[in-house]
Amino acid sequence: MADDTGSNGTLARIVMKFGGTSMAGTERIRRVAGIVKRQQEAGHAVAVVVSAMAGETDRLVNFCREANALYDPAEYDVVVASGEQVTSGLLALTLQAMGCKARSWLGWQVPIRTDDAHAKARIEDIDADALLASMASGEIAVIPGFQGVSPEGRVTTLGRGGSDTSAVAVAAAVKADRCDIYTDVDGVYTTDPRIVAKARKLPLVTYEEMLELASVGSKVLQTRSVSLAMKEGVRVQVLSSFIDESAPPADDLPGTMIVSDDELEGSDMERQLITGIAADKNEAKVTLTRVPDRPGAVASIFAPLAEANINVDMIIQNVAKEKGETDVTFTVPQADLARALAMLEERKEAIGFFRLISDDHVTKISVVGVGMRSHAGVASTMFKTLADRGINIQAISTSEIKVSVLINADETELAVRVLHTAYGLDAAA
Amino acid sequence: MADDTGSNGTLARIVMKFGGTSMAGTERIRRVAGIVKRQQEAGHAVAVVVSAMAGETDRLVNFCREANALYDPAEYDVVVASGEQVTSGLLALTLQAMGCKARSWLGWQVPIRTDDAHAKARIEDIDADALLASMASGEIAVIPGFQGVSPEGRVTTLGRGGSDTSAVAVAAAVKADRCDIYTDVDGVYTTDPRIVAKARKLPLVTYEEMLELASVGSKVLQTRSVSLAMKEGVRVQVLSSFIDESAPPADDLPGTMIVSDDELEGSDMERQLITGIAADKNEAKVTLTRVPDRPGAVASIFAPLAEANINVDMIIQNVAKEKGETDVTFTVPQADLARALAMLEERKEAIGFFRLISDDHVTKISVVGVGMRSHAGVASTMFKTLADRGINIQAISTSEIKVSVLINADETELAVRVLHTAYGLDAAA
Repeated sequence: MADDTGSNGTLARIVMKFGGTSMAGTERIRRVAGIVKRQQEAGHAVAVVVSAMAGETDRLVNFCREANALYDPAEYDVVVASGEQVTSGLLALTLQAMGCKARSWLGWQVPIRTDDAHAKARIEDIDADALLASMASGEIAVIPGFQGVSPEGRVTTLGRGGSDTSAVAVAAAVKADRCDIYTDVDGVYTTDPRIVAKARKLPLVTYEEMLELASVGSKVLQTRSVSLAMKEGVRVQVLSSFIDESAPPADDLPGTMIVSDDELEGSDMERQLITGIAADKNEAKVTLTRVPDRPGAVASIFAPLAEANINVDMIIQNVAKEKGETDVTFTVPQADLARALAMLEERKEAIGFFRLISDDHVTKISVVGVGMRSHAGVASTMFKTLADRGINIQAISTSEIKVSVLINADETELAVRVLHTAYGLDAAA
Repeated sequence: MADDTGSNGTLARIVMKFGGTSMAGTERIRRVAGIVKRQQEAGHAVAVVVSAMAGETDRLVNFCREANALYDPAEYDVVVASGEQVTSGLLALTLQAMGCKARSWLGWQVPIRTDDAHAKARIEDIDADALLASMASGEIAVIPGFQGVSPEGRVTTLGRGGSDTSAVAVAAAVKADRCDIYTDVDGVYTTDPRIVAKARKLPLVTYEEMLELASVGSKVLQTRSVSLAMKEGVRVQVLSSFIDESAPPADDLPGTMIVSDDELEGSDMERQLITGIAADKNEAKVTLTRVPDRPGAVASIFAPLAEANINVDMIIQNVAKEKGETDVTFTVPQADLARALAMLEERKEAIGFFRLISDDHVTKISVVGVGMRSHAGVASTMFKTLADRGINIQAISTSEIKVSVLINADETELAVRVLHTAYGLDAAA
């Protein structure tokens, strides 16, 4: 499905990205170099974005913590950015040893300009001139992921997992025909193949589907990189880096291509109504009983949570049982549960609830698909399928391309399996 | 002897340098930060130059070799410069944890401009404005040693041991009152204390003495850094980094100060005629017998060696034994011996010698001292002292401040001991 040529009919400009597992040691870097070399030999102009060796960033972060528990993020960035600096130099050396022209471009050399939010910087602008000249001359440009340079000329990093974002941003800057993200999975699946043996790899997903799948626990790509790809219209392909080196170039590899709605509609690919099923175990449920049923009561619950940057997802306000009283249930990330409970307990009188109940043994199951927009019945199929198996739905939320329900965590695998079958996603036996 | 104040009577501007052993791990970096903080608390404006953690540069060099045996020095520099980047960030963090203002300045940020001779670059210019502003504001400037930036804006390194040179260059650029080099010895000695128990630490040596002592095997400082200090007039002090943290600031520590001749003469320090005795076991002796005693014969021996960058040190042309023939003896570094022998053997007919004899079991013993210029008898004392012990002198060379002899390596320790006593260098019992 991925065409071998650029949009103007000439050979393509391709950005490739390799993660820490692929870069862990000179032997694996040689394997990566082999994959890169084959792309260049296919006639493409190539830039490569690399992560630090697996484990290296953790080692450097630990040094920072030992040095200063409340570390200055500007100096933290100086230390941790070194991991990608090392792998970019080593990949350039390895490519040269294989007879390719190659050179490394550090964040400040490109430059990849970011804001000054050290340790979680956002890319503002990439000057692509030098990269384009390098690529056009047949040189492979090797770029450390995760790093940039601030307006003050200091080293910045983009936050953990930021190398995916670096790759997409570089692809947008050089107007790449494709951004190939090599990972330790070989694509995006209809659901977690460890749960459902009959899960199928998706040839195509839209940016929005990928965002929903990523944000509910399918950690193939960093969410931020998908948003950026959508905004910039970068075609992203997810591929496995653990392929046979003698295999044909990546264009023919069965990865997953992440595309726009338009491109999806333009493809002659037969699409299921539903793209995938995701399970997210990182939510916790909070219930406040017998909250006064008057204007402002609900706001007095959620306003302080919002101020504390605690992300509230599903919200249900039950029908008043007692006259003038109602139960309010919502979910927050498990990591924020203790903080949320403490805040609510503090405000018990102001809010006027009776009891505060929490449960972190829950899972959010989501069915995702752009087809949902033009089809009815997705939600009722979901409810009926779960009810038939006696799975109790504790909360519901929907978006344009997603229906989510909260269930008991013990029933996660059963729910994913029966929904996968109900929506016709199972691979042919 | 080291005055606590700057040359203009105000408090001093001081550059401190710490080597890899001192920076090996966060615990040791904390000790370094303690030493730095005490200098600042004494009221000085401080910049610190740091090496990579001990062993780290070797680890990175090995990665480069594994990636590409004939590595591109520009990419090698990208990889190996990361070691000092890490320690500079960590020292800044550690100083901040101790309540000091501190920030790191990478080579390209200062900038420390070098030529483009990657992996062995020479510093051409340091823009001190940003550093001076930082130091003046009470911030400690932490600078990774060994690295700079080329005219093309790429990362360069100065070659192994280059951090001493970085420190001296920074000291020259900020017009520091002193450059304190912290090492794993506590100063420069009259000779190797492991050979002569009565060796004394020298309070003062001149640049030229230090150069002679360094180039003949006393590896306290990189030779290049001493040349630069001499050229730029930087006062360098050699100190131990393994001091009690509760000890008084470095000004009062008994290190060795390296100064100019003028400063030495201006000091009221009583000086010995001879400063120290050095032993260098890295030379090898080559003898060509029965070389034709005609113009051009000697040139035909040394010209090809010079072209091959083989450094010839001592040269003796014996009185002709046979009519029209002479023996030529000289020394080369042991590392170049095999190459030198092969070159000479190839040219046997052209040179016209009879036999080629070599001996790498030799030691060059040097007595060094600026006092020598104004005193006679140094050489004769040397010859007599060695002769009295039956030590045969195989070759002799002299410079303005040095007399060197070549002896059998088995007699090294005896020779150093008896000369140390003969020149009155022994510490009082």
